Amino acid sequence: MTEDEAMRRAVALAARGLGTTSPNPVVGCILLGPAGDVVGEGFHAYAGGPHAEIVALAQAGERARGGTCVVTLEPCNHTGRTGPCSDALINAGIRRVVIAVDDPTPVAAGGAATLRAAGIEVVTGVRRDEAEAGNIAWLTAVRRGRPYVTWKFAATLDGRSAAADGTSQWISSAESRADVHVLRSTVDAIVAGVGTVVADDPQLTVRDLRDGTLAIKQPLRVVVDSAGRTPENARVRDAAAPTWIVTAAAAGTGPDGRVDLNALLTQLFARGIRNVLLEGGPTLAGGFLAAGLIDRVVGYVAPKLLGSGRTALVDAGIGTIADAVELDLTEVSQIGGDLRFTATLRPKENRNPTPLGGLN
Amino acid sequence: MTEDEAMRRAVALAARGLGTTSPNPVVGCILLGPAGDVVGEGFHAYAGGPHAEIVALAQAGERARGGTCVVTLEPCNHTGRTGPCSDALINAGIRRVVIAVDDPTPVAAGGAATLRAAGIEVVTGVRRDEAEAGNIAWLTAVRRGRPYVTWKFAATLDGRSAAADGTSQWISSAESRADVHVLRSTVDAIVAGVGTVVADDPQLTVRDLRDGTLAIKQPLRVVVDSAGRTPENARVRDAAAPTWIVTAAAAGTGPDGRVDLNALLTQLFARGIRNVLLEGGPTLAGGFLAAGLIDRVVGYVAPKLLGSGRTALVDAGIGTIADAVELDLTEVSQIGGDLRFTATLRPKENRNPTPLGGLN
Repeated sequence: MTEDEAMRRAVALAARGLGTTSPNPVVGCILLGPAGDVVGEGFHAYAGGPHAEIVALAQAGERARGGTCVVTLEPCNHTGRTGPCSDALINAGIRRVVIAVDDPTPVAAGGAATLRAAGIEVVTGVRRDEAEAGNIAWLTAVRRGRPYVTWKFAATLDGRSAAADGTSQWISSAESRADVHVLRSTVDAIVAGVGTVVADDPQLTVRDLRDGTLAIKQPLRVVVDSAGRTPENARVRDAAAPTWIVTAAAAGTGPDGRVDLNALLTQLFARGIRNVLLEGGPTLAGGFLAAGLIDRVVGYVAPKLLGSGRTALVDAGIGTIADAVELDLTEVSQIGGDLRFTATLRPKENRNPTPLGGLN
Repeated sequence: MTEDEAMRRAVALAARGLGTTSPNPVVGCILLGPAGDVVGEGFHAYAGGPHAEIVALAQAGERARGGTCVVTLEPCNHTGRTGPCSDALINAGIRRVVIAVDDPTPVAAGGAATLRAAGIEVVTGVRRDEAEAGNIAWLTAVRRGRPYVTWKFAATLDGRSAAADGTSQWISSAESRADVHVLRSTVDAIVAGVGTVVADDPQLTVRDLRDGTLAIKQPLRVVVDSAGRTPENARVRDAAAPTWIVTAAAAGTGPDGRVDLNALLTQLFARGIRNVLLEGGPTLAGGFLAAGLIDRVVGYVAPKLLGSGRTALVDAGIGTIADAVELDLTEVSQIGGDLRFTATLRPKENRNPTPLGGLN
């Protein structure tokens, strides 16, 4: 296996940890023996568990000696709940380390330097874009000091998330709804507004939609509830998953008298949360967008038309077309009969409008 | 070339006539000589001009004798502005005729029977779906006695067609706007509401967006203007294309006191119009949808978020999610930075909702 192929495999392995490694990143590792054969592989599966390199080294044993470590993130250099991976690689007799992405955290970085000082050849940047994409939530979170926020919504082709009478079950297909549970399984917390909780009484858990079986690991349920209106018997209060009902008094009050969303995210980060799924409703989504706190959008668009009813997003503080928030579509696919798209928010400095005149 | 390949080519040829053949269909024809080589090809280019078979026969001359005619629509059997194609094929010594779609019109049909009576072998249904799709506007129009209506809109990912202050230039990319002009070039009429005319003063012509050059053939501009409010100096009144300002008094009044949309389409059909592009605004689109008069939707969705402003569709008479109009997505592509989708309205009897419980 070439180092490039090994890195592609390592990126795929890393993704298996999504949803269970926070506050740690996802990491995948392939060990190649001196002849280029795979002698060990591993991924970081959960916080407190062994790092990807350690899993792979344990698998390889003596076969790693003189070999190459292909890893999606710079091996750590510090003793946390586990010892430094850099030392483990040195002690195992690894000759060469191929890294996709440098570790941006001050506490864990320095692994590459330690390896080089020990005479190991270190290469970085191999399949960096893919590895970055696979770790985007953690990388963004540690760079910004707040969790990565994905806003998910479902709507009709004409942008309605509910009909005029408030009904919204089911706008999207069974396949899309199942896909949302896969998406939920990759995050540390699910955030919803109290309006959604009062209107729809969602459970906000990860479960098998055929029989309701709950996943073993459940994200934290976060209800943004400035005035403490969450009903006592709301399903989000059940025992299926941990829940934080966030009042303005508890989290801090923003200029509008509601929960300060920046403060909320800072507190979630302090709790070890790196990856958040924002599920609505439209006003809360508008608040996050207006505060610049949305990183990614996943939309499930059903091939239906309504012509009236609630839109997916309101009150984002945008008054004119030139101020529209610009996104980059990163993925479009059909799921069930629906269209699913994923888009990332474009940094303002990258905007490059090219208007043409007289087009209508 | 096989007959199947020839039919695929004939369907592609037929499409070249889109926008200039009404009230006639688009038709493409390939003539294969006795050895299977292409000896002639043609398409129906404009109403009053020669039919596809005649063009191909003229090109082939004596080489057509003993050969096969591959044609997207059943050859006509009547003398209109031109003579019957069935006779021309018989006289040319064609031995076999391969047809994709039967002619549904009483006046022109019967060509296959005439050919068979003359001893010619006739096969129908080859690549029927593709040929039907290529002729869908004409086929739908003659079956329903009203033009085929495509509703086109542009919106942000959150379903807004304008910002809160009414600005909408430019929601979609330059590539999408150019694509709209290609779409316009395939229709016989462009329909817009007076609200759009007053607000945006569009020209509603087909032109080259780089230099404004008008296409030679322009669709009829139709302004739905119940009370006669179109300004005297509106651009739709210029000399660039023919225009019909439709008042309720002229077209007939619906139950809401506005232009009766069914009557409008009947009158457009009587004028020879088979293919209409409905360009807005949201209220007029809602009226067409509520009346069951939209056949196809083409949406240009820009990767932007607004959170407020006009939606693409209003007042479609739908109050609850179960009554949402269901569509089938037939095409999704990226154009410029935008997403373009095409969808057809699903007949009500084909609806097969499969709700699952307990998903939120």
